[in-house]
Amino acid sequence: MKKYNFYSGPAILPQEVFEQASKAVLELDNIGMSLIEISHRSKEFVSVLDEAKQHVKDLLQLDDDQQVLFMQGGASLQFCIIPYNLLNEHETAAYLETGVWAKKAIKEAKLFGNVQVVASSADKNFNFIPKEYVVPGTAKYFHITTNNTIYGSQLQEMPVSPVPLIADMSSDIFSRPVTGSKFDMIYAGAQKNMGTAGVTLVVVRESLLGKVKRQIPTILDYRTHIKEGSLFNTPCTFAIYVSMLTLRWIKKMGGLEAMQKMNEEKAMKLYNEIDSNPLFTGVIAKEDRSRMNVTFTINKPEFEDAFANAAKDAGCVGIKGHRSVGGFRASIYNAMPMEGIDVLVGVMREFAVKNG
Amino acid sequence: MKKYNFYSGPAILPQEVFEQASKAVLELDNIGMSLIEISHRSKEFVSVLDEAKQHVKDLLQLDDDQQVLFMQGGASLQFCIIPYNLLNEHETAAYLETGVWAKKAIKEAKLFGNVQVVASSADKNFNFIPKEYVVPGTAKYFHITTNNTIYGSQLQEMPVSPVPLIADMSSDIFSRPVTGSKFDMIYAGAQKNMGTAGVTLVVVRESLLGKVKRQIPTILDYRTHIKEGSLFNTPCTFAIYVSMLTLRWIKKMGGLEAMQKMNEEKAMKLYNEIDSNPLFTGVIAKEDRSRMNVTFTINKPEFEDAFANAAKDAGCVGIKGHRSVGGFRASIYNAMPMEGIDVLVGVMREFAVKNG
Repeated sequence: MKKYNFYSGPAILPQEVFEQASKAVLELDNIGMSLIEISHRSKEFVSVLDEAKQHVKDLLQLDDDQQVLFMQGGASLQFCIIPYNLLNEHETAAYLETGVWAKKAIKEAKLFGNVQVVASSADKNFNFIPKEYVVPGTAKYFHITTNNTIYGSQLQEMPVSPVPLIADMSSDIFSRPVTGSKFDMIYAGAQKNMGTAGVTLVVVRESLLGKVKRQIPTILDYRTHIKEGSLFNTPCTFAIYVSMLTLRWIKKMGGLEAMQKMNEEKAMKLYNEIDSNPLFTGVIAKEDRSRMNVTFTINKPEFEDAFANAAKDAGCVGIKGHRSVGGFRASIYNAMPMEGIDVLVGVMREFAVKNG
Repeated sequence: MKKYNFYSGPAILPQEVFEQASKAVLELDNIGMSLIEISHRSKEFVSVLDEAKQHVKDLLQLDDDQQVLFMQGGASLQFCIIPYNLLNEHETAAYLETGVWAKKAIKEAKLFGNVQVVASSADKNFNFIPKEYVVPGTAKYFHITTNNTIYGSQLQEMPVSPVPLIADMSSDIFSRPVTGSKFDMIYAGAQKNMGTAGVTLVVVRESLLGKVKRQIPTILDYRTHIKEGSLFNTPCTFAIYVSMLTLRWIKKMGGLEAMQKMNEEKAMKLYNEIDSNPLFTGVIAKEDRSRMNVTFTINKPEFEDAFANAAKDAGCVGIKGHRSVGGFRASIYNAMPMEGIDVLVGVMREFAVKNG
């Protein structure tokens, strides 16, 4: 039975990426060896790494000061090493608190310096994106989370910052056009729109580094990874390969403009159903709704399990909401086809007719 | 043409592991989804993780105080977080310096406390394993590298330590029986005998933790990963799956005793050729020779490129020695069949006849 994968991450990828990656695990490009047994320093793998880097540069419109790194450890490691590399003990970093992941980033930064939370929607369970705030010109940097996977909110406009702007784009990178050169740092765990788990994309402006007084352990220092071209130690070669394939697919499909168009259409169809169906309510303020993670609750809580089962019976996997929000969450990343939305919308309609 | 993969890591894995992993990338166990698109918290993946953990516990004969973790970042991240978690500023840790990786571990430990190098073979370019040394009873822990991938040396007997014993087993774990319960910590990047790149096995005694005064960033604290069962953040699900398959294969083949028997036979055949062939010389003291990485030089340096080409023509990939040793290195991990050794030995004999 056909499954529609609404998991929030690791998440759905294009079918052709699965096919190509599967083939490479048996044998990479007729070299007589598997992708997963060759050296990360072999010419075959270095060519994969170079291609992945070039796609990132092209798609994000980066400038020459911006270095593209493939690291391990996920966004959670970045929460710690961003202040480790950039924030002296007596200095202050500004953070916008829009969800659990932003909170986690704030918690780690406090171990290294001062944190000023410029705005927060915590008192409304993060159901909107704060817009009226001032970023102090004395802050070392300003950190934002562009999409909040758990709550289903998303920045529809990027802020203008008087200080270096750092964005955690884990759950919406490559889903819409972004002028990467406007950022001083961008990072993203790969396992949503970019590939599978095991690699973290980091774009960092080299001119930002080397300014803190503390000693940084070698592997936690961005300069190590810049100097070694992401090959300081063995990276997750498979995950980088899958990212390269996915980025290649994005370009082939028409790039980020095409991704945005499809993502808008899919999200609008689902939000329209939520807004017009008497059984469901959207969680997030309309202007801040995510095009990636669509969160909604059921107006008759006694039907929650029954709806979850109906969706499951129709092949929709992974729509249970995060425990801190409840209800449902449909993650509809780049690779989710419109067909998946249609199936879910169909289940919602049918369920409302039967139980409305 | 059949290739024999002598890379030092990522490295050769059993053919059936490639086949099973390739299939799972298309679809995992008939669940209608790919291994690489499902949530790390899905019941399907949690079952993979549990099986991998159980294999580690069984194969290494661990006791109940020993926690099995699957982390990211490789041994290089462990070099930093071991002292971060275990060594106060005024305390001393003992290290045995047997190669480049040990040196790197020592360098990072010095950022956190004092280091006493109890013995070193650095002045002989690490061509032997020091055996006469005293580990001070006041040291916080004693750190060893059981196999030195670059130089091709290996501890044939594990030291008895008066303080907690920590072993980097990256390049020989699961190649021979080890009584894991004698260690306080064992760690290993997966990409040699255990699987492919993207996951690091950490076995840590819980009673060792929580004793340093400094604040540890959440993701660098072993207690975080113990508490969250290696699911604090998204792990590299694919690499954990490949490790699970490889560990399953090791058990099926007869466990670590069977691995050791095969590895001894393969290594002896290759070392016998090196010792009897007038063209080649082994790099490492005979009693310390690694069963995993066989290093040798050619006695007529003018033939170095010609021999490299002859090996390549016979399908032997990755035998160039590390630049700090020169010559050749044949990495012959668990999955290297005797046939690969025979082919390489054949090339050496034929080359000696032509050029001896």
